[in-house]
Amino acid sequence: MKSKQPVSFPSSNRGELALLRQIRSRVAQAPGGGLRLGIGDDCALIRLRPREELAVTTDLSIAGRHFRLDWHPPESVGHRALARGLSDLAAMGARPVAAFLSLGLPAELTLASGRKQSWIARFYNGLLALANSHRTPLAGGDLAESPVPMADILLLGAVPLGKALLRSTAQPGDLLYVTGTLGGSAAGLAHLAELATTTTQRANQQPPKIPQKRAPQLAAHLYPQPRVSQGLLLRRRGLATAAIDISDGLSTDLAHLCDESVVAAEIDSARLPIHPGASQWQALHGGEDYELLFTAPEFIRMPRSIAGVPITCIGRIVRPRRGHPRITLLTAQGSKPLVPRGWEHFD
Amino acid sequence: MKSKQPVSFPSSNRGELALLRQIRSRVAQAPGGGLRLGIGDDCALIRLRPREELAVTTDLSIAGRHFRLDWHPPESVGHRALARGLSDLAAMGARPVAAFLSLGLPAELTLASGRKQSWIARFYNGLLALANSHRTPLAGGDLAESPVPMADILLLGAVPLGKALLRSTAQPGDLLYVTGTLGGSAAGLAHLAELATTTTQRANQQPPKIPQKRAPQLAAHLYPQPRVSQGLLLRRRGLATAAIDISDGLSTDLAHLCDESVVAAEIDSARLPIHPGASQWQALHGGEDYELLFTAPEFIRMPRSIAGVPITCIGRIVRPRRGHPRITLLTAQGSKPLVPRGWEHFD
Repeated sequence: MKSKQPVSFPSSNRGELALLRQIRSRVAQAPGGGLRLGIGDDCALIRLRPREELAVTTDLSIAGRHFRLDWHPPESVGHRALARGLSDLAAMGARPVAAFLSLGLPAELTLASGRKQSWIARFYNGLLALANSHRTPLAGGDLAESPVPMADILLLGAVPLGKALLRSTAQPGDLLYVTGTLGGSAAGLAHLAELATTTTQRANQQPPKIPQKRAPQLAAHLYPQPRVSQGLLLRRRGLATAAIDISDGLSTDLAHLCDESVVAAEIDSARLPIHPGASQWQALHGGEDYELLFTAPEFIRMPRSIAGVPITCIGRIVRPRRGHPRITLLTAQGSKPLVPRGWEHFD
Repeated sequence: MKSKQPVSFPSSNRGELALLRQIRSRVAQAPGGGLRLGIGDDCALIRLRPREELAVTTDLSIAGRHFRLDWHPPESVGHRALARGLSDLAAMGARPVAAFLSLGLPAELTLASGRKQSWIARFYNGLLALANSHRTPLAGGDLAESPVPMADILLLGAVPLGKALLRSTAQPGDLLYVTGTLGGSAAGLAHLAELATTTTQRANQQPPKIPQKRAPQLAAHLYPQPRVSQGLLLRRRGLATAAIDISDGLSTDLAHLCDESVVAAEIDSARLPIHPGASQWQALHGGEDYELLFTAPEFIRMPRSIAGVPITCIGRIVRPRRGHPRITLLTAQGSKPLVPRGWEHFD
């Protein structure tokens, strides 16, 4: 939101500047935490505490890939864009310090119509609500006209030197845990797709109206909660040897953790904390749950919940063996390889 | 370039992973400087030196707005995307620490054809050449399929606590300086547009072949040099009271500096260091020169060049007066208000 926007909306330039001022006034009220200088100079300035290092993550969301204008309410698009980045910080056990947003939008999404808020205003409502609940200032970014709506979110976090939770440090013998439940986002997306195709809203490219009684079914998909407090507590209490967030699905993200740690894993299918209404397939392969997947030595007494979110042991890390699958799924019918089936988006 | 890409190229997934591995091997060879952990975990980890703070800037480049596939060679698109961010750091007097790139591209731009490199490989050639010349590691980012090519670049820099050059600290009486020459990028763009419309390449949406003898005319536009060393030296030697980079054009960026500092300015048109072949209009209003515009008290003995780049005094900062223009252009014919005419892109 620097003032150095591309001056490329010649006809609507005044409107764009007004919009930028409006956003600036909403997000830059009080630089807090480590943020010393927000929107309005060439760069934002950020201070860490002594003996901290910086954790940095960027996540690109593109219409048609990561969200659909005719399925997702703008508040959800803003929430989800930020949730992806916060979840990466959570997986490192980092505290959020600041977020930056680069937004590319068609001009019509920046316009209010009558008494209805513009798409961009509702997008910011969703993003800022989540940012505020994690005390994460939106410290800057960029805005440009783009024929395809897209949002690139950057999250900066801080972690004591050398203390970040990594993917690469799981050990054979460690137990494997997840926070919360799995498959809720994929199940919610299926509900959303059904709603979108059965309502008449479709014609005007608006997301479907969500009946109040169906909102809980969709919440895990539309408003996933990144496990920031849980990640911080896991690191501070020394409860985890390695961690990753589940963004692409358990099977895919566990494969990443195994690859980086050079280990294999076994999952006990009976112990999977499947989200109510979700299938086992969705719990194993559905993405965007933004739960944490982490490992801990067997001797650690793991709490049953952390900051209000249940913790479930779902298996263990084992030594990798040639000719054996990287991930084995143990079921009542025996064991079988679990092949990563990463989350496929909307096409 | 985290492994958590959206798995949304079902048919070309293997190709995409191979591409990511290739990029990863090119960019993450040796985390250096403050970069402790690059591509491959949830976040990159970065350490600052004691008593430093972080400068952060993001810049979004979208095809059709900031570059054109049928005008700009891919190497130039990569170079320019990074140059914008480095120039923001230069304006703060910050040393570059790391860059992150989020890239959205149509699948066909990731494919090599026969012995010709893919568009994305040539884009990285341009970006990494500039990154290497400023010892800036590319520490991560994201890659997704997008119907419209776009690149969002994030630059992290470091600056001693409280020592960053700001836009808001110019004082009445200060002299006004620029590095290098002005208008070269706008003049180069005009040449490029002419080449693109007169060559036959246009039909296949390829950028025009640039005859060797015309390359120098285009260099200021295609490969602008951000003034990182100059910004660092200005800060270290205490030579500047305020600074901004010229990305939108002198008239626009000087207006930003005046607004943030609550001052006015006078420019002496005879002293403008106009780029050879550029017009006065291009020097005053053409954007993307990425020179530094800075202020210094009159008593400072300003060197005639810094790190090989000439420094020119072009005017002075004055007290703002009601009913007087914010920026006045002094010419042989008298003085007139200089109205910001920000750079307009390609439409």
